[in-house]
Amino acid sequence: MPDQMQRIVLASRPEAQASEDNFRLEVAGLPQPGKGEVIVKVHYMSLDPYMRGRMNAGKSYAAPVEIGETMTAGGVGEVIASNSPDFVPGDFALGMFGWASHACIRASEIRKLDPQMAPLTTALGVLGMPGFTAWHGLQAYGRPKAGETLVVAAATGPVGSMVGQLAKQAGLRVVGIAGGEDKCKLAVEAFGFDSCLDHRALGSAEALSAALAAACPDGIDIYYENVGGKVLEAVLPLMNSFGRIPVCGMIAWYNSAETELTAPAIWRSVLTKFLSVNGFIIFNHYDRYPEFLQQVAPKIASGEIKYLEDIAEGLENAPKTFLSMMQGGNTGKQIVKLV
Amino acid sequence: MPDQMQRIVLASRPEAQASEDNFRLEVAGLPQPGKGEVIVKVHYMSLDPYMRGRMNAGKSYAAPVEIGETMTAGGVGEVIASNSPDFVPGDFALGMFGWASHACIRASEIRKLDPQMAPLTTALGVLGMPGFTAWHGLQAYGRPKAGETLVVAAATGPVGSMVGQLAKQAGLRVVGIAGGEDKCKLAVEAFGFDSCLDHRALGSAEALSAALAAACPDGIDIYYENVGGKVLEAVLPLMNSFGRIPVCGMIAWYNSAETELTAPAIWRSVLTKFLSVNGFIIFNHYDRYPEFLQQVAPKIASGEIKYLEDIAEGLENAPKTFLSMMQGGNTGKQIVKLV
Repeated sequence: MPDQMQRIVLASRPEAQASEDNFRLEVAGLPQPGKGEVIVKVHYMSLDPYMRGRMNAGKSYAAPVEIGETMTAGGVGEVIASNSPDFVPGDFALGMFGWASHACIRASEIRKLDPQMAPLTTALGVLGMPGFTAWHGLQAYGRPKAGETLVVAAATGPVGSMVGQLAKQAGLRVVGIAGGEDKCKLAVEAFGFDSCLDHRALGSAEALSAALAAACPDGIDIYYENVGGKVLEAVLPLMNSFGRIPVCGMIAWYNSAETELTAPAIWRSVLTKFLSVNGFIIFNHYDRYPEFLQQVAPKIASGEIKYLEDIAEGLENAPKTFLSMMQGGNTGKQIVKLV
Repeated sequence: MPDQMQRIVLASRPEAQASEDNFRLEVAGLPQPGKGEVIVKVHYMSLDPYMRGRMNAGKSYAAPVEIGETMTAGGVGEVIASNSPDFVPGDFALGMFGWASHACIRASEIRKLDPQMAPLTTALGVLGMPGFTAWHGLQAYGRPKAGETLVVAAATGPVGSMVGQLAKQAGLRVVGIAGGEDKCKLAVEAFGFDSCLDHRALGSAEALSAALAAACPDGIDIYYENVGGKVLEAVLPLMNSFGRIPVCGMIAWYNSAETELTAPAIWRSVLTKFLSVNGFIIFNHYDRYPEFLQQVAPKIASGEIKYLEDIAEGLENAPKTFLSMMQGGNTGKQIVKLV
């Protein structure tokens, strides 16, 4: 077992836009596992938009990463040393290993994976946190009904592509929004969206709203919110009475809060359209995870639900890959391969 | 039967703040009732904040009042002529009679009242639309649990006072907000609020938020929203995780949309506190009205639930009474007595 590991820590907090300067790669000692602990060699780590929130100081739903602390991340890895009866070296596991080559972690905090059941990377995407977020938010707060219309942005991302496919299978009209022609084509051809609009070509909220109105002739019943910003501004005027908005993210407003949308305009839409808006974070809902796996895993295996991964290589490339993802530079679930 | 009636029409649309110039009192002919219709002499008419919204052009949850049209209002009156088998002269009824001395209306659109069961005016307030709004919003979207903390503004108004009393009876800590010392005293002494804050004395959102924080040591679980503006801005930072916000009005933003609260700040609260925000208008929920009456009417009769009415006199005084009410000039449910 090595006695050193590599990790990426938060070097400084972003002023507005995050940059590579906010991260630092360093070498740290790797301890022997204490009682009940294991050492995991990380094979794949997940990059997700929520991490941007952890880089800020101040109260959020989770404590911020402190300066000098390892950046938070879920990962998949191999147990290489164990001081727990539940794991032996060679086992694979899912856990919050951070942006790091190795982790020393309590066995009770990780979950064993069977690499024969599904590719290891799916535990980070379609069968992991993003896929589960999509499924739970849609079921619990979207309450989809056949014949309705759903809109979701980041349509080829791990949340958007799952939301779209689940809604389509439930009999809804599904309209995506994505950045660039290629992603829009992918949303329609690979994930079965009825239509997908390119928010880069549609520069203003007005232009996007006009295109959405054409793509949603019966209005919008469910807006699955993961971006905020211009998309929210374009969608609100098109929401139908009794519409639902599950809110799992607002990536457009993580770096900046510039917008023409006002607080009274949001509140007026909520009131006059009788909207149901529900914020959630999937970490509060893991009691439903077995139900999710039972429903969705067979559809992954059969190909009924498709997924797409974007795999970068090398821990040292994690910061720039993360920053690129925050600008939509990825196509599909962003993962970093470490070995 | 008279052949003329008095009515108040919308003379012009407000630019921002509504004024008496926006209304005109006029005399109009009173027709004979057609088949299935009745003529009602209005005894009491209701003034409610939602009417401000109807004065604006543009899409809302209800069509606007057109220029020259009679202003909308619920009222209680006596049938003085009937061309319907369901009503005879002398019957009392509740209906949307408008700002008018008389109404010619379809019998199917009004509801008979028994003046022996409860004072006629209660059909406009505590047992009518505002009371029902309070009850439904609290039950359906507030989902109160004993031990939680609820905040509601306009605490001595017909919605706020009912919300506060129902929540108190359900075992919650109930904190009101009202305009002026007298109303705050009333909220505590007459309606049983645990505490009530004077938003006039607490000029800024920051000051109001600090006072709320002291009055709500365990945070806020339910914010029953009927005002928006400064109160919403003060409340949002204090909302607990999994908090609920039923939204039935936003009187502070009907005349003006000036605020320091931003759209991203609302969305961030929704996301990071896992809030459930539900807009509603009670007109969509009259299927639950019998259930409301069954639960609440006995508590009115027994005095377990208290109510307060503010009765102005004379149709000609309706505009200035309405404008005063929009500034909090009333104490209790605002009604205009016509005869």
